Amino acid sequence: MYKGLVESLAEKGGGSILLAVLDGLGDVAEPGCKTPLEAASTPNLDRLAGEGALGQHIPISVGVTPGSGPAHLALFGYDPVEFFVGRGILSALGIGFPIEPGDMAARANFCTLDASGAVSDRRAGRIPTETCAALSALLDGMEIEDTKVFVKPEKEHRACVVFRGPGLSDRIGETDPGVVGRPPLQAVPLEPEAEKAARIVTEFLRRSREALAGHSPANGILLRGYAGYRPYPSMESRFAVRAAAAALYPMYRGVASLTGMQVLPCTTRDGQVAAAASALRDGFDFVFLHHKPTDSAGEDGDFEAKRAAVESFDAMLPGLVEAGFDVICVTGDHSTPCSMKLHSWHPVPLLVRGGPQRCGWSSTFCEREAARGALGTLRAVELMPLLLASAGRLAKYGA
Amino acid sequence: MYKGLVESLAEKGGGSILLAVLDGLGDVAEPGCKTPLEAASTPNLDRLAGEGALGQHIPISVGVTPGSGPAHLALFGYDPVEFFVGRGILSALGIGFPIEPGDMAARANFCTLDASGAVSDRRAGRIPTETCAALSALLDGMEIEDTKVFVKPEKEHRACVVFRGPGLSDRIGETDPGVVGRPPLQAVPLEPEAEKAARIVTEFLRRSREALAGHSPANGILLRGYAGYRPYPSMESRFAVRAAAAALYPMYRGVASLTGMQVLPCTTRDGQVAAAASALRDGFDFVFLHHKPTDSAGEDGDFEAKRAAVESFDAMLPGLVEAGFDVICVTGDHSTPCSMKLHSWHPVPLLVRGGPQRCGWSSTFCEREAARGALGTLRAVELMPLLLASAGRLAKYGA
Repeated sequence: MYKGLVESLAEKGGGSILLAVLDGLGDVAEPGCKTPLEAASTPNLDRLAGEGALGQHIPISVGVTPGSGPAHLALFGYDPVEFFVGRGILSALGIGFPIEPGDMAARANFCTLDASGAVSDRRAGRIPTETCAALSALLDGMEIEDTKVFVKPEKEHRACVVFRGPGLSDRIGETDPGVVGRPPLQAVPLEPEAEKAARIVTEFLRRSREALAGHSPANGILLRGYAGYRPYPSMESRFAVRAAAAALYPMYRGVASLTGMQVLPCTTRDGQVAAAASALRDGFDFVFLHHKPTDSAGEDGDFEAKRAAVESFDAMLPGLVEAGFDVICVTGDHSTPCSMKLHSWHPVPLLVRGGPQRCGWSSTFCEREAARGALGTLRAVELMPLLLASAGRLAKYGA
Repeated sequence: MYKGLVESLAEKGGGSILLAVLDGLGDVAEPGCKTPLEAASTPNLDRLAGEGALGQHIPISVGVTPGSGPAHLALFGYDPVEFFVGRGILSALGIGFPIEPGDMAARANFCTLDASGAVSDRRAGRIPTETCAALSALLDGMEIEDTKVFVKPEKEHRACVVFRGPGLSDRIGETDPGVVGRPPLQAVPLEPEAEKAARIVTEFLRRSREALAGHSPANGILLRGYAGYRPYPSMESRFAVRAAAAALYPMYRGVASLTGMQVLPCTTRDGQVAAAASALRDGFDFVFLHHKPTDSAGEDGDFEAKRAAVESFDAMLPGLVEAGFDVICVTGDHSTPCSMKLHSWHPVPLLVRGGPQRCGWSSTFCEREAARGALGTLRAVELMPLLLASAGRLAKYGA
């Protein structure tokens, strides 16, 4: 991709685009076996496959397995290395914390410290989430110098800490020693500009230890994955689309909001379809719809659940087609093969229906047909230009 | 590829990898005809094709025909442009000369000078290799200032000259005028730092002319392809693999050693298989095995010999499979079509068996199946990340 080229060609006007992401869609199968996508009964996807063109995308780079953050950013046309999202920010987005530009976020573990101050359990015996919430509330709201500190529970021993104040670099040392038997590390500045952040984090940790004393096994806190929040240029400014997101999970709503998408209110799959249709009527040009169950089933290694998850998306399709999007793209953010129970590096099947396509090559949507499709193999970050072009939203390059 | 990304994700531990390179493997065929790979009887390769996934790689860049040096470096995950190997160094590696960091090497031609000092034959009538060896011995071992000069014969009129001393830049002018009827060019410095090297090369050429006087037709020597030897970061430091090479030809042993591979002792094909198996038992994670006859046959334009060369590799496969490598990759470094008798730019068939693959798509290994395989078309330099991923040796990128 040529940096800035697509942005320079993107025009207002043209068709509307739906990007439906079946999280973790791609899979692998032993010889003679089917993938969940092959095994699923998908009359609506199959019809779209016949009307459109297939292909596959490589999420980041050959062999590289992506986390959900970079994988989605790539689908939205944001280079996933240039626009890296730190763990702390993803954590804040994941719990729906209203992060603001300039915030610096970190992932926190409640931990157990022994009498000598050494870490004896990095996860504080995996305290219940309710305990985590109570302890987070105990630490939430500190004011240190000109900085406010938010502490919000995630799950079990995990929490998210957000520092809000001017001039907070995220280049400071992680305090999790990584092993038991050693005291927490110091939050040292890793660059001169980080001295203020290091001082504030150190004071936060000191006060936290005081507040947590007596709350054994969760009498300490460890920080890692510091990440500053720098707003990204918006989808609208880069690609001249008004963009909206119909996602149920906070994490994906968060990543969408990073790119300036309007997050649509919805709490069910039917609600997602209705929200997408409504956004189109309201003048949005681009709607991202996120379907999580395929990934969850893949991570559980549950073939039948993943097949059912594909079918539950297929059932959403008629409503999305009826809504009248000019271009409908169905793909995944990465593969999550049931046999691996993990995200993987495998190429991800891709379907584009609408706009002038070389269509009619396939009558079903699956990994194998996708690998041989008219769209070929592209990088995820190249999908957005393809969708803009399909919708007639990119000008010609040169005369 | 993102520079440094794969290196940052590579982890110790995970599966073992065999990379078997059939030199010049790819070919082209007229309509209705078969390539040597299609024509060969390859029961073992075909079985592997069914158990694994196929694809093809582009050695350097579309349309670019590679030499053996860059083609192999790309397969090892070294960007062939960033890690360019100069001709002088490849020449030294090709004859098995024990090159050392800081050495500066050049290719030499014995030539014929007429009475006026002009070059009358740039190849000295293609003197026999024995004459070349005798004349090289005559010039070998000079000491000029603090620099020692090695002169070693290659074939016919070709020799390799290695300058060993501190501060020798390779940015000096070639002395081969490229045409007859003109005197050799001066070895001028092309940058200020090259003045010492130019002075030493000039003195070497002066003494050589004196020593060669009367040895007509080989009474002169021309130098080109100067190249300094800078050691590369090792496979181990970049990809966290202990790597070894089972190759019979000095050139490929040399290129492997450039990347820090341990060169295994072996002198026959059976010895290569035994050495690869032994290296695996000894804890090497990555073994490169080189099979030369396919390329030699292609350069000879000998279809039957190339078919036989494919079959002779197929006969090695059972021993390699039994050795127990977790991931086996079979490919070529480039294509050497029999009809061209030359290296070519064509994509090269690729087979990966082991690790979670989309397999069972093909039951034979050939150019046509490879082009339609699940691995798609990738760049040679992307193969190493794919193999590391297949062996479970790459961490996830981002959260």
